[in-house]
Amino acid sequence: MADALAAIDVGTNSFHLVVARADADDRLDVVTREKEQVRLGEGAGDMKHLSPEAVDRGVAVLRRFRGLADAHGAEVRCVATSAVREAEDHDTFLDRARAEAGVEVEVIAGVEEARLIHLGVLSALPVFDERILVCDIGGGSTELVLGQRGETLAARSLKLGAVRLTSRFFADGTPSKSELQACRTHVRGTLVPFERAVRRHGFEVAVGSSGTIEQVVRLARRAAGDDEPLRTWNGVTATAEEVVAVAGDLARAARKGTLDDVEGLDPKRVDIITAGALILEGVVEHLGVTEITVSEAALREGVLLDTLQRLRGGSAHHVTDVGRRSVRHLAEANDTDLAHSEWVASLALQLFDDLAPGLGLDRDCRDHLEAAALLANVGLAVSHDGHHKHSYYVIRHSDRLVGFTDAEIERIALVARYHRKSAPKPRHPEFARLDPAEQQVVRALAAILRVAIGLDRTHSRRVAAVRARPGKGALRIEVTPAPGEAAELELFTAEERSGLLAEVLDTAVEVVAVDAAPVP
Amino acid sequence: MADALAAIDVGTNSFHLVVARADADDRLDVVTREKEQVRLGEGAGDMKHLSPEAVDRGVAVLRRFRGLADAHGAEVRCVATSAVREAEDHDTFLDRARAEAGVEVEVIAGVEEARLIHLGVLSALPVFDERILVCDIGGGSTELVLGQRGETLAARSLKLGAVRLTSRFFADGTPSKSELQACRTHVRGTLVPFERAVRRHGFEVAVGSSGTIEQVVRLARRAAGDDEPLRTWNGVTATAEEVVAVAGDLARAARKGTLDDVEGLDPKRVDIITAGALILEGVVEHLGVTEITVSEAALREGVLLDTLQRLRGGSAHHVTDVGRRSVRHLAEANDTDLAHSEWVASLALQLFDDLAPGLGLDRDCRDHLEAAALLANVGLAVSHDGHHKHSYYVIRHSDRLVGFTDAEIERIALVARYHRKSAPKPRHPEFARLDPAEQQVVRALAAILRVAIGLDRTHSRRVAAVRARPGKGALRIEVTPAPGEAAELELFTAEERSGLLAEVLDTAVEVVAVDAAPVP
Repeated sequence: MADALAAIDVGTNSFHLVVARADADDRLDVVTREKEQVRLGEGAGDMKHLSPEAVDRGVAVLRRFRGLADAHGAEVRCVATSAVREAEDHDTFLDRARAEAGVEVEVIAGVEEARLIHLGVLSALPVFDERILVCDIGGGSTELVLGQRGETLAARSLKLGAVRLTSRFFADGTPSKSELQACRTHVRGTLVPFERAVRRHGFEVAVGSSGTIEQVVRLARRAAGDDEPLRTWNGVTATAEEVVAVAGDLARAARKGTLDDVEGLDPKRVDIITAGALILEGVVEHLGVTEITVSEAALREGVLLDTLQRLRGGSAHHVTDVGRRSVRHLAEANDTDLAHSEWVASLALQLFDDLAPGLGLDRDCRDHLEAAALLANVGLAVSHDGHHKHSYYVIRHSDRLVGFTDAEIERIALVARYHRKSAPKPRHPEFARLDPAEQQVVRALAAILRVAIGLDRTHSRRVAAVRARPGKGALRIEVTPAPGEAAELELFTAEERSGLLAEVLDTAVEVVAVDAAPVP
Repeated sequence: MADALAAIDVGTNSFHLVVARADADDRLDVVTREKEQVRLGEGAGDMKHLSPEAVDRGVAVLRRFRGLADAHGAEVRCVATSAVREAEDHDTFLDRARAEAGVEVEVIAGVEEARLIHLGVLSALPVFDERILVCDIGGGSTELVLGQRGETLAARSLKLGAVRLTSRFFADGTPSKSELQACRTHVRGTLVPFERAVRRHGFEVAVGSSGTIEQVVRLARRAAGDDEPLRTWNGVTATAEEVVAVAGDLARAARKGTLDDVEGLDPKRVDIITAGALILEGVVEHLGVTEITVSEAALREGVLLDTLQRLRGGSAHHVTDVGRRSVRHLAEANDTDLAHSEWVASLALQLFDDLAPGLGLDRDCRDHLEAAALLANVGLAVSHDGHHKHSYYVIRHSDRLVGFTDAEIERIALVARYHRKSAPKPRHPEFARLDPAEQQVVRALAAILRVAIGLDRTHSRRVAAVRARPGKGALRIEVTPAPGEAAELELFTAEERSGLLAEVLDTAVEVVAVDAAPVP
């Protein structure tokens, strides 16, 4: 493990860097923080494209952040949110970030973003036992989470952002009364689905975790006369009435063109604070918030903690608990014979453990193989015909799956997709898009999974155990049938499905029955 | 309604035509039957392509069938099964069938094929009250259904077909012992998933409904000395032992190259009967069949009955019951707020009834709008983000949806897909593929659905009723709020979402609240 960890949050308005060291109790000791207002989502209107200027600015900031992280000997993890997520041409940015800044940018889904923010907030405020509503108003989107004790009850990424709504409603500068009203109504309408989630689950404490919210709370405290300079705004609160009053003041000032005169307002935020404040006003009014507490920790701290949890898996490293639980949830919701999939997963891991050294597969691959085995049949919920392709689709798009990066989800989805029928082929676009090393990983994991599925062909656990050992000019897959079973059809099917494994290993494969090992 | 109905079944081995008139009790009176061995699936190995020669033969037969149907004044419905379903280049065949034979070929999914065969069998044998296993061994696939009283308990289309397995296992003519064994094992392995369905549901009567099965039963009766020529083989049975013996005899004769000498064997079937008999042998042995009964009715009769049921909907014509039930099943399995979707469907139909005449939309469109409204949110089971696209995917691929043609399912899926976010655009490939008239239908139905969804924005039935009437230079959408409700957000959202409707109608649209009509 590196000396330190660095997390970079590539947001629509700002990029954040945080570098930290973990102490023996896995508490993070922040070494340095940086924030740069990049406005990556600016100048593109519909957010479907990144402007070349914005990409230039973003890559330059990443190069600088990379240098800072390197100076602290920190391993970098970088996540990108709505601006990059929604831009159809985001590959250019990802490619340039890799080539020019040496930063691998992970594009994360809205629900994953919400989960990580939730994780970050729990590290900053003593609210673990309470039912909390977390609200993070970004430049492109607003993340809302209802959670308790680290579990997510509901999470939503809404296309409400300070930059987004500014360019949609106030693009021509000073907003008119009707433009302000249209923005408020839009916020209200967009919040409706989450209002239902709030009605269902309720919450005790509302937490706000972004620059916009901190700014509004600062203005509220100043208006109340509490204007002593604070070392940290973490844990500071404002009531609903105070938030609504600040938003109203800002909207009036915006209409009069006097925002520049508002005391305590960050000049860099002047042009987008009106939209941001109206979003917070809507959240407070329509979600029943009576008081909001600032969390200075957010997405970037969540990324650090998540990375730490992954690394801390240590020698018994497994899919992190949250990832593992989410795989199980998805499987339970969609697979009508989960006991079969669990057995297949267990057989697949037995084969993996014998074959991984020769194939150069690491511990992460083991977790991904297990996830793919458990999820191979989720496509059955759509249709039996072509269900391997439906499994790919469901895994790829499911918002139940959290705790994995986009590239990890793609790997799991592809291995599941290749659990039957066609082997990976260059004419399959999703496979062709991978780099050659990743293609080899997918082929190897799918090859193992196909044999394991053959070994439970009848879904009745007729195979108790399996080993893979080098034989004479061939790999021997040694199958121990369950007591009293011949498992003929399993042996036949496993051999029939071993073609890809033979190709991957470039050797013949034979499947043979062996007696159960004598009890020692 | 035409004087008569004609059904054409475009199979992998044979094409069938049946022309019938319905009597007052909706019993079908067959006027003429034709069968032509086209071998559409031949010469292509993997079944991913149709050979040009096969397409020529097929189109010529369709032209002849069309002429026969015309001579009887019959309306033609033509369905195509696995050979066309699987061929990636099937558009050529469909285009030529339309242009040169005037026949619109519907490609039906395997489960729909199974349902129609089931329907056909029920018309031919008195087994409505019993739990039946229906087996239909075609050239490209074998359809298996477990059903009772017209309800399907399980249905599967397996890639086991007499033509398919012949070219896979016996391509080089006289089969060897090991080729025969490989074919049997493949059959057994492929049947495994359906074995589980049989274990779960059980059955009382097994019915076989294809040329292969009739041929094997004929040989069994002949071996038993019952060789009087029958006018019909409908209802004739063979025991499991007889079927296995015939299959064994045929396999031996095939190996010796003496099939031509087998008495009672149709010479046109000599080259594919071995594979067909081994499939039936596998079904009998592995699904626990003790006796099999021949049904002379099959897919084509099912198509006729299905067409009749649709036409008989008459003035209160609705989605046929089976289609309607299947829509509901799919919605129940995937939509967590079905009450909302039902309310939206009801509001959408109120708008439809006012707008359909002006938009030239027929009764079928009304049914499809209702289905799209009920299914608009099934994509939520995958993910909230982009759930309209997931709804398209699930509707398009679900095997729960039966009783609709492929084109109808596409229409329903597209209208559901356009229930939110982007309106239909030429750059969306699925939309671009439609002909201009169908594009207009999809746009019109989606336009109505979007407004109806706006009218239940809060999912709380605040709008009691809606009318659409011509106003001054604009369409007036008159909304009656539920008693005691203002429904402000609904009115706002409906107007916000009326853009597509305004475009389709080429007029402004205004949404206004009106008082509830006084009780008369």
